[in-house]
This record gives sequence, C-alpha cells and structure tokens, in this order.
Amino acid sequence: MVPHLTTALTGPLLELERKFLDSSPQIEHWLRGQWQEYTPPFYSSCDLRNSGFKLAPVDTNLFPGGFNNLNPAFLPLCVQAAMSAIEKFCPEARSLLLIPENHTRNQFYLQNVAQLVDILRQTGLNIRLGSMLPEIDKPTPIELPNGQSLLLEPLVRNGNRLGVAGFEPCAILLNNDLSAGIPAILQNLHEQVVLPPLHAGWAVRRKSNHFAAYDQVANDFAKEIGIDPWRINPAFSVCRSINFHERQGEECLAANVAAVLDIVKEKYKEYGIDETPYVVVKADAGTYGMGVMTVRDADEVIALNRKQRNKMSVVKEGLEVSEVLIQEGVHSFETLNEAVAEPVIYMIDRYVVGGFYRVHTGRGKDENLNAPGMHFEPLAFDTGCNLPDYRCGNPDSPPNRFYAYGVVGRLACLAAAVELDRTAPEND
Amino acid sequence: MVPHLTTALTGPLLELERKFLDSSPQIEHWLRGQWQEYTPPFYSSCDLRNSGFKLAPVDTNLFPGGFNNLNPAFLPLCVQAAMSAIEKFCPEARSLLLIPENHTRNQFYLQNVAQLVDILRQTGLNIRLGSMLPEIDKPTPIELPNGQSLLLEPLVRNGNRLGVAGFEPCAILLNNDLSAGIPAILQNLHEQVVLPPLHAGWAVRRKSNHFAAYDQVANDFAKEIGIDPWRINPAFSVCRSINFHERQGEECLAANVAAVLDIVKEKYKEYGIDETPYVVVKADAGTYGMGVMTVRDADEVIALNRKQRNKMSVVKEGLEVSEVLIQEGVHSFETLNEAVAEPVIYMIDRYVVGGFYRVHTGRGKDENLNAPGMHFEPLAFDTGCNLPDYRCGNPDSPPNRFYAYGVVGRLACLAAAVELDRTAPEND
Repeated sequence: MVPHLTTALTGPLLELERKFLDSSPQIEHWLRGQWQEYTPPFYSSCDLRNSGFKLAPVDTNLFPGGFNNLNPAFLPLCVQAAMSAIEKFCPEARSLLLIPENHTRNQFYLQNVAQLVDILRQTGLNIRLGSMLPEIDKPTPIELPNGQSLLLEPLVRNGNRLGVAGFEPCAILLNNDLSAGIPAILQNLHEQVVLPPLHAGWAVRRKSNHFAAYDQVANDFAKEIGIDPWRINPAFSVCRSINFHERQGEECLAANVAAVLDIVKEKYKEYGIDETPYVVVKADAGTYGMGVMTVRDADEVIALNRKQRNKMSVVKEGLEVSEVLIQEGVHSFETLNEAVAEPVIYMIDRYVVGGFYRVHTGRGKDENLNAPGMHFEPLAFDTGCNLPDYRCGNPDSPPNRFYAYGVVGRLACLAAAVELDRTAPEND
Repeated sequence: MVPHLTTALTGPLLELERKFLDSSPQIEHWLRGQWQEYTPPFYSSCDLRNSGFKLAPVDTNLFPGGFNNLNPAFLPLCVQAAMSAIEKFCPEARSLLLIPENHTRNQFYLQNVAQLVDILRQTGLNIRLGSMLPEIDKPTPIELPNGQSLLLEPLVRNGNRLGVAGFEPCAILLNNDLSAGIPAILQNLHEQVVLPPLHAGWAVRRKSNHFAAYDQVANDFAKEIGIDPWRINPAFSVCRSINFHERQGEECLAANVAAVLDIVKEKYKEYGIDETPYVVVKADAGTYGMGVMTVRDADEVIALNRKQRNKMSVVKEGLEVSEVLIQEGVHSFETLNEAVAEPVIYMIDRYVVGGFYRVHTGRGKDENLNAPGMHFEPLAFDTGCNLPDYRCGNPDSPPNRFYAYGVVGRLACLAAAVELDRTAPEND
C-alpha cells in the first residue's frame, strides 16, 4: 500500500500498472522477503519517469529534501515509519542531532528541515540542529516564512562523539549529502549511530553503483512477476576519466552513448514504440540536477561547445566531474495542465510515506525536470482515495495508478539497501 | 505520536496530560525498550476513561470490532502498521484466513469485518473469510448497506491445517473472541500461525490477568516519568467461585467491593477529590458489556434482586459467570453535547492507528457505556491537526490531549503483551 492520490496522468491505467496491481500479493510477499535480507536506508526519495510503456526510477536520493512538499495528511504515516526506523537503527536513542545542508538562505530547503524536525520530534526524540557552516559559530535562530524558526548550532566534537553545546546525541541523522567530501568532524564517530552511513554521501557514492544494484533488484523482481525487466529499468553505462574542460574521454562517452541508444532502439523496435530514444548524461557523483545533459545522438557529445563543457564539468560544491553515467532517457508522458510532470516518491525505512509531482511548464517530455534554479510546482499526492482499490476493479482509479509508483519507489529503495551493503567500507 | 483529533473534552489540558506531553522523549524511549522485550498482540482496542485526575484503561479487547468507526483518513496508517505486524508474525505469508464473530445480522459488525479485509488486502495478502457458523455450509455472500459484500465460507480442516475450500492460508486471524470455548477445529493448528493465540480468547482469558499485568506496566511507567501509578491504573480485586443464581460468594464480593472502595476513598482524600467513589463489578471472562454492574456501597451486592442476579449471571454465548472482577470506577468527565463520552483507542501491532468516542446520551458519568443493545455515536478522532504540538506549546490543543490517550492505550497494549506472555500454555 502507498499513500497517494492526485494523479497527473488521467488516461486508462496502463498495462504495466495493471500488472503490478494484479500481482500485488506476490509483490508484497517478495518485498517482505527482501526486507528480511536487506536493511533499507533511514529515508530516501526517488524520481520516477512514466512513459506508459516504461515506469522507472531515474534518481534515488539518500538525503531527501522536500518533506515539506508532502501532503500534511501523511504526517502520521511519516512519524509511524520513523518510529519503526528508529527502533531498528537506534532503539536506545533519546536524542538525535540533525545535520542539514548549508543552504541557510533557501527557504524551501529550510522548510524541509523544519518538517523533518517535526517528524522526528513526534517520535519522542530530543532533536537539535548542528550546522557544518563555519559562520554558524553560535546558536543562530533562522526565521521561516510560516512563522516557525529553526535554531542552528555549531557542531562540537568531543573525542569520538559529536554534538552541539550541552547535547551529545545517541544518533546523528545527515540531511547533508556530503558533496564537498566527508569533513574530519564526521569521521570516526564510532560511539554514535550515523544515518545514513557516511559512504551514502556523494563524496563516496556513485550513481552507477546504485543502478548496478537496481539491475539486480529489477531482474529478480521482473522474474518474480513475469515482466521484461527493461520495463522498469533504464539501461545505463559509465565513463570514468572524463575531463570536459580538457576534452578528455569524449570517445569513451560517444561510444557509451551509442551503446545505450542502441539498446533502447532495439527495445523500441521490439515494442513498436514510435518515439525518439535519448540518453541523459549526468555526473556519476552528485545531485541537484547539475552536470546533466540530454543527448539524442552520439555525435552530440563530440562537438560540445565551451558553454556545454563548462555546464557539465562541475556539480554542487564546485566538484569536478570526472565520471559520468549515461542513462537511458525515459520520456515523461505525464502532464498536468499541459506541463510535464514527474512523480517523486518519499520513503522512510521501507514504507512509502507520500510523494508529489514535480511539474514544470517550460520543459519537454525528454528533459530533466530537476535543473538548478528550476521552478517547479510541487503537487502533493492527494489524500482523497488513498489506496489501491482492488474491489471496484476500476483500472482508471488514480490510487491504482499510484500503487505502481509506490512499488517502483520501493524497488529503488531496495536497490539503495543493496548498494549501501555492497559499498560499505570494511570497518563501517 | 498518535493520530487523533476531535476532542470531546475542551477544557484546559489537565496536569496529567501535560506531564505526558512534557515527558514524551522519556515515554517513547521507555516504550521502545519495552517493545524490544515484549511482542504486542496483532491488534487491540482499549476503552479509556478520563476523569481529569485520572486517565486509565478499563477494558482491553484483543479481537477488536469497530475498525469501521475509525476515520477513513487513518486507513494508510492501519495498513502500514499491519504490514509491520505481518512482517513480524508471518513474513512468509501470502494468504490469510480471517475468522469473524458469528453475528451475520449485525451490520455494524460486518462493516468492521469489511474494513479489516480492506486493511489486510492492502498489505498484499490474499484474504478469505471462514465462518464458524454451522449454517454457513456453502460460500454465502452477505450484502452490506454500503453496497459492499462479504463472502463467508465454511471452514475446512485438513489434518493440521485449516482453511476454506481451495485455500490453505499461512496465517489465521481471529476476530472471534472464542467466548463459547475453543472449538476443536481451531485446536492443534501447529503448521499455521494463529493470531492472536488461542489463549487470548475469552474461553481462557481473564480480565484479572490483564489488569495484573497492567499493574506491573503502570508501576514501571509511573516510576519512569515520576507520577503516582494510581493516576493511570484502576484498583481492582477478584472473586472466584461466585454463583449469582445460588447467591454464593456474596460475602467475598461485598468484602472485595469494600476493599476496593476503601483504596479509592483514601486516594480521593489524598488528592482532595470531591466525587463519590464507585466500583464496577464485571465478569472476569467476557465482553460486550454484559454482566456488568456499578456499585457505590458494599451492601448493594448483598441485596441483589432476582433481575439483577439474572443480569450478572450470564455473558455472551450464555456463559455462566463464576469469577468477577471488582474494578475501581473511573468517572468520565468527557462530554460531547452534554452526553457522556468515552475514548476507544485502536492499535495494530504497537502503533496507535486511530480511535473514536463512544458517546451515549442516556448514561451518567459513572456508568458503563458499553452495554448490550446500547446505542452509541462513534465520533472518529479527526484528522485536522493530528499530532502533539510541542512547538506552539498551547496546552488546550486537542492533539496534545490525545497524545496522552495514545500513551495509555499503548500501556494497555503492552500489558496485553505481558499478559499473553505470562498465560501462554507450555506448548503454545
């Protein structure tokens, strides 16, 4: 079951979604078995694309922002899921330190932090906010537009433990994706539970590891319910040792773009799909839709102009891009008032706790909707009719559509669990 | 956290409730620890009474009806909690047999069954309904007023396994409280998970065991947060070998009534409470508010007339009453439109998933609101502002009041866990 409800796509329930609905007892049973084996990350969010013939995750975030975009009606669900996660990771915890991103001027992000604090406080934890910003050298209240305020405090390291003044928490929850590297102050905290683990941060994490894990998950799942795994899995490839400035690795990139496009073309032919295949080239480490490029032909990556090369060469925190993921593009056929919409699914532990549509009027169905400075309208999934309706059997019912989204979101979450397990350092 | 929200009591938040709110980090931490030690029943409901000076459970039901009275907005919460329970009790389950009560003409009860089927189906289980009624000798559809229908099927025993025709489930969920005894068809089902266990049924269960377990829970909890355990725990005593028809055991009853009244009088004096103490005498085994009597003076139980003796001597399924619980009465000071209201809290696994007020215009604040044939208006807890609001610090906020209810409901659930653990037969 997943909570969700306003659907952007209002056409008849597609065959793939119907398959998910019909296989729900198998799917839930299979997922229960997987969660016995793998530990889901504390929280995650997943960007999906639905082309009708394909429903696939294109990005999985282990430091999700945007909890403020969820329907407030789902708050109890978030709290219940967080209670379950805390019971698993740190049942002894009485207090938790939340370390947010350094965006003290991004009001949207700060509202996400406030929402996270709310959720965690409702589980009965004492919560304080520790900032990694050097300028936060004393407790600093930050006012939010809704009248709330957050108190950011400087981190205090005390031997093997981290906290803020007068507060040594049992657990540390990162909402900072560590794009700038793992700071010394976070290293060797052997006496505290750090969630998610440090190797989930972009200093270490690679999208290609995630999608390699997703390959395994998607194959097993597809076999279980009897579908072609490609229907839920974007093809991908990786190039390492790229230097966009120096134009190094262009051949590798072009060859891999061609290879992925070939796979997609073959599949389009197999399914009689009359669309132009494309790939998305993105930094293998990093987030925020920076360093992302849509490509329809391998030649395009050979002839990049200076502006394009500059755009691709750095991501958040000025990190140089040297490894890129070449991912099959999945058209978004979901529109809302003629704007392209992309569902984002939120999970705490192994539970789907809500989601929203990223809606953007100025972009095409084959473009990345999570671009820097991009304006999007979050459309919270509604709460009106919030569960798959097996009974009435109406395939057009929005909750039935959303059941499929929740399943794919959970597959991505499972892939993240597999990924974190595989990439864990020996002493972690 | 607990989902709830329409409050019947609108006065200022009472000191006890404020204490709960302020102690929430300790409370949640303590409860997490308890759930590491004890396994909560699959589901439960708890009748609470709130007298302002005291907030206590007066009955804990391990075969809860009334899921249909919960706010539909809490359905996702029920499903999530049920997923968690199934993961714990029977992760391998693909199918589940639900055995309801034999009330095929009670539309309210049938709607509860329909609601349970809905919740369980959303967890991805195949659900069928097996009836213990002899007249259900073939699959029998039962129409509900809302247009839904239920299919009751005759039970089929196959060696050590129970099912219905063509369906051998992994797990069996009882929504039948076994007041009439444990039928042979349910015994020795060693290859299936039976939830709750058979000794939770009224054929075996005793309220006095529950409240003895609650004594321990309440004492530990009260010590943890520094309150007098009496504030959350009704005093009680037991008489065995009662025969109301034969007027046997009247002296035992009178002595125990006097003893409990003395405890309560002492406490009322200590707290300066200007109310008349009373006790409730009820069958130690049984439910549905049958065999229940309010007593203000020990002499009252000596001079019972024939009608009163008849009323006390049988409970559901014609079971003879030979053991009674003498429980401190807790005044209900909650009213709604001048009618007395009693909160009922619903739990699945260790999670509060909703609740409602039992509201009855014709009864006094010291009367049992769960009487046979009684008309009550279920007032579902609202979803408007559904979590304790630590931030604004407004003690009159309804969600803050309800946090306390959820805590006491969970204490009763924990007591049920302790009780089932203590009373489990060796080979169970």
